[in-house]
Amino acid sequence: MNIRYVISLLGRLFMVLGIILLAISGWSGLQLASGQPDEKTALQALLVSAAVAVGIGSLMWFTSRTRSSQLGRREALLLVAASWLIGAGVAGLPYFLWASIHASAGPSHAFANMVNCYFEAMSGLTTTGATVLTGIHLIPKSILLWRATTHWLGGLGVVVLFVAVLPSLGVGGKKLFRVEAPGPEPEGVHPHIRETARILWMIYVGLTVIETVVLRLAGMTWFDAICHTFATLATGGFSTIDASIGGYNHSLAIDIIVIVFMVLAGVNFGLYYQLIRRRFSSVWQDAELRLYLGILLAGSAVVVISIFNSPITLTTGESLSPSTAQAIRQGVFTTVSLQTTTGFCTADFNLWPFLSKAVLVLLMFVGGSAGSTGGGIKVIRILIAFKVMVAELERVFRPNVVRPIRINNTTISPELKLGTIAYVLGIVLIFGAGTGLLMLLQPTGTIEVTTAATATAATLCNIGPGLAKVGAVENYAWFTNPSKVVMCILMALGRLEVFAIIVLFVPRFWRNT
Amino acid sequence: MNIRYVISLLGRLFMVLGIILLAISGWSGLQLASGQPDEKTALQALLVSAAVAVGIGSLMWFTSRTRSSQLGRREALLLVAASWLIGAGVAGLPYFLWASIHASAGPSHAFANMVNCYFEAMSGLTTTGATVLTGIHLIPKSILLWRATTHWLGGLGVVVLFVAVLPSLGVGGKKLFRVEAPGPEPEGVHPHIRETARILWMIYVGLTVIETVVLRLAGMTWFDAICHTFATLATGGFSTIDASIGGYNHSLAIDIIVIVFMVLAGVNFGLYYQLIRRRFSSVWQDAELRLYLGILLAGSAVVVISIFNSPITLTTGESLSPSTAQAIRQGVFTTVSLQTTTGFCTADFNLWPFLSKAVLVLLMFVGGSAGSTGGGIKVIRILIAFKVMVAELERVFRPNVVRPIRINNTTISPELKLGTIAYVLGIVLIFGAGTGLLMLLQPTGTIEVTTAATATAATLCNIGPGLAKVGAVENYAWFTNPSKVVMCILMALGRLEVFAIIVLFVPRFWRNT
Repeated sequence: MNIRYVISLLGRLFMVLGIILLAISGWSGLQLASGQPDEKTALQALLVSAAVAVGIGSLMWFTSRTRSSQLGRREALLLVAASWLIGAGVAGLPYFLWASIHASAGPSHAFANMVNCYFEAMSGLTTTGATVLTGIHLIPKSILLWRATTHWLGGLGVVVLFVAVLPSLGVGGKKLFRVEAPGPEPEGVHPHIRETARILWMIYVGLTVIETVVLRLAGMTWFDAICHTFATLATGGFSTIDASIGGYNHSLAIDIIVIVFMVLAGVNFGLYYQLIRRRFSSVWQDAELRLYLGILLAGSAVVVISIFNSPITLTTGESLSPSTAQAIRQGVFTTVSLQTTTGFCTADFNLWPFLSKAVLVLLMFVGGSAGSTGGGIKVIRILIAFKVMVAELERVFRPNVVRPIRINNTTISPELKLGTIAYVLGIVLIFGAGTGLLMLLQPTGTIEVTTAATATAATLCNIGPGLAKVGAVENYAWFTNPSKVVMCILMALGRLEVFAIIVLFVPRFWRNT
Repeated sequence: MNIRYVISLLGRLFMVLGIILLAISGWSGLQLASGQPDEKTALQALLVSAAVAVGIGSLMWFTSRTRSSQLGRREALLLVAASWLIGAGVAGLPYFLWASIHASAGPSHAFANMVNCYFEAMSGLTTTGATVLTGIHLIPKSILLWRATTHWLGGLGVVVLFVAVLPSLGVGGKKLFRVEAPGPEPEGVHPHIRETARILWMIYVGLTVIETVVLRLAGMTWFDAICHTFATLATGGFSTIDASIGGYNHSLAIDIIVIVFMVLAGVNFGLYYQLIRRRFSSVWQDAELRLYLGILLAGSAVVVISIFNSPITLTTGESLSPSTAQAIRQGVFTTVSLQTTTGFCTADFNLWPFLSKAVLVLLMFVGGSAGSTGGGIKVIRILIAFKVMVAELERVFRPNVVRPIRINNTTISPELKLGTIAYVLGIVLIFGAGTGLLMLLQPTGTIEVTTAATATAATLCNIGPGLAKVGAVENYAWFTNPSKVVMCILMALGRLEVFAIIVLFVPRFWRNT
């Protein structure tokens, strides 16, 4: 294991974070100069954080320079795990410093607790969107911009990792999900990676620009448009107000724009790459894309039908009498928001009938497409798992019949079959363990099964809101610190497809044999 | 598909059920003659049921006689599914007839509802032990004897099926679980099956005789001793009194005897066969046996520790102040009862701390050994699944390293790996679907998640009691009929290892191609 090289890369990452923090500090300074006095504390917090990030980053970089720049599988996995686990510490620094400097925020502010800051930063970088905040609009804009930026960076990181980097290293048997499949590749960073990563980055930036402009045209301020765009494309879900998108609810246009971009963010970014290369038919015939859209449609239909005659309470607290238009609007928005694992809210779906809640929780597990910024199990795995389970059923009475399972004209290898089923089972087991742990770690009476289970699902699948005490109008501040640490681990597990975190605990991972 | 032959075998099975009902009728007559007036209605119900069973059985037998007595995989699966699904209808007949004839039982008696009778019969034949009854001691003894007999027959059927019959047909990739493994065998009923089945039957009868005598010596009446023995060896759990074994709680001897025989019933009966053949070392070195005993010990330890300072409420309603002896006694009894999927109760474990309840629910899923009368996922599958999951983790960073997984010096084939993981995932998915269905089928306010989830687990894993409203001192009468039908299906699914039921819904199963 080339740990020096991993540390050096990690150092570079922290330097990049520091530079971005510096840029936001600049913007904060402009805000302060244009008469926003509350930016003063924010500016101080951001500048110190930027200095710390650049300082630590450069220290790591300089002390661990190495000639060997071989990035093998284990190095890549360690880098990925450390980026999120340690990165969240750096990303949470501005929150903690701001609450420490800002006297009137006081010790009762959520950010006065270091665990809360780490939670919020992990939630941002993993594009989860679970927050410990209430009174979000009271926080300086530059801090909220950094908070939205953690989403955007996390989303970009995931897309680049899971579409360009990890498949080239043959990590996790993910050959099926890759953009190009030109047979086996040598170990080590492939020259194609840079090029693929560059194109993905351009697609991501392009979508960011488009959504920001469109949201601005629909009536949001530039600031709100940027923050919500960052949260949409990363399928994150942080908003700049407590009521989330529901706070702009009089604008149907904003709801529709956000729905469209949430759907786009849940698509495999490799397909956009194909679009650019004008391979339209291979995009349209993509099995995962079709199933993804199909599940979104079917799920929305069930949810809309189940809330058809129910009154709807918006996240603002406003009550709407039952209407067809509202059932469709709120039903579709909520379904898309939860399946894509964004977690924006317009209505308090915790008050909806059981059927709609059951479907929504199910879709939380399905999640977005592989290679998208969405979390969850991923549509392609659901598809493979379903086909394998059906094939296993036939094997009961025809053990000698072997029917190959094909997806997009590719035969699924036995390794991928086993790997996929094991992954789905692993997610379910972690879900059970997480629920049990939260029940155990919370004092009696502060939690029940629905809250524990949906808080676990909402963090493990990187969604944000769940049901009951973590519902659309609630937040995560009330959990004990140990519970929050558990949920931070769940967010990292979910975002990094489980194995990048778990392998760290496998002794053989560290052995050079 | 040779459906004629299946019908003919099913007919023979019903005739056997009829003859057993006739025998119990005879005993009922003796009871009546010796001054038990409430046996009159029971005798009538049993006689009519016996006549119906023999009548239908012989009709099926005579009308479908066929020269072709080839029992292939599909025929065997169909026979198994029909035996339980239709058999429960026949087995529930005495309950319904008794309540219909017995005027004072009245329309409010649980058995006045046909669905309840089917539920109770299915619960008996699947060795679940979930009951719709309260005031069990008020029901005529002959009816209770038949109820206990359904357990005994179900347990015997399962052992013979899963140790002798199905493995010889190569059904379900269960080669690992078989007693003898002399390479591939020709399709069709193997001559060894009869011999193996005969020995298993003798072991089962032997254990029955021993436990009955021992329980009688410990102070039970012959009637109670027989009924509880039937329920123990089948890991069923029906008692003759509402308080279950807790009603005999002043006898430590009875608790210990029941614990020992529950443990024995959860052991692969193939191992007893090995014992008879004096292969002691292969029994003692059996990986599943060791893990089974290890989990029982570890689980008991955690439960005992978690209830160490808690007061204990017995199923009789009696409260005990905290004591080391009682914590050990109640903790071990409950752990063994739930993991072996028997479901006898002495204490109301629903009142215990969350940790013990979480462990108990976990053990409900683990269940007994393959080839035992116990339900659940089975210890051997847990072992294989665990080893496969660990191996999959290593594959993440060393995709080219293949480490064979061995159990009892046998290498696990890729098919068995996939089949096992898929089975475990299947159980978890059915558990989720069952929980959701129960929530949907019950009127709002009559059920919450804990009840729905543990009722599903308790029926799917063939245990009996769960938590909350299906806890140790509760029963299943309050569910709506549709919910009860769902739970009947869950019991059959769990008992027949899922596939025997699900394949009936696979169109290809019925096609002769």
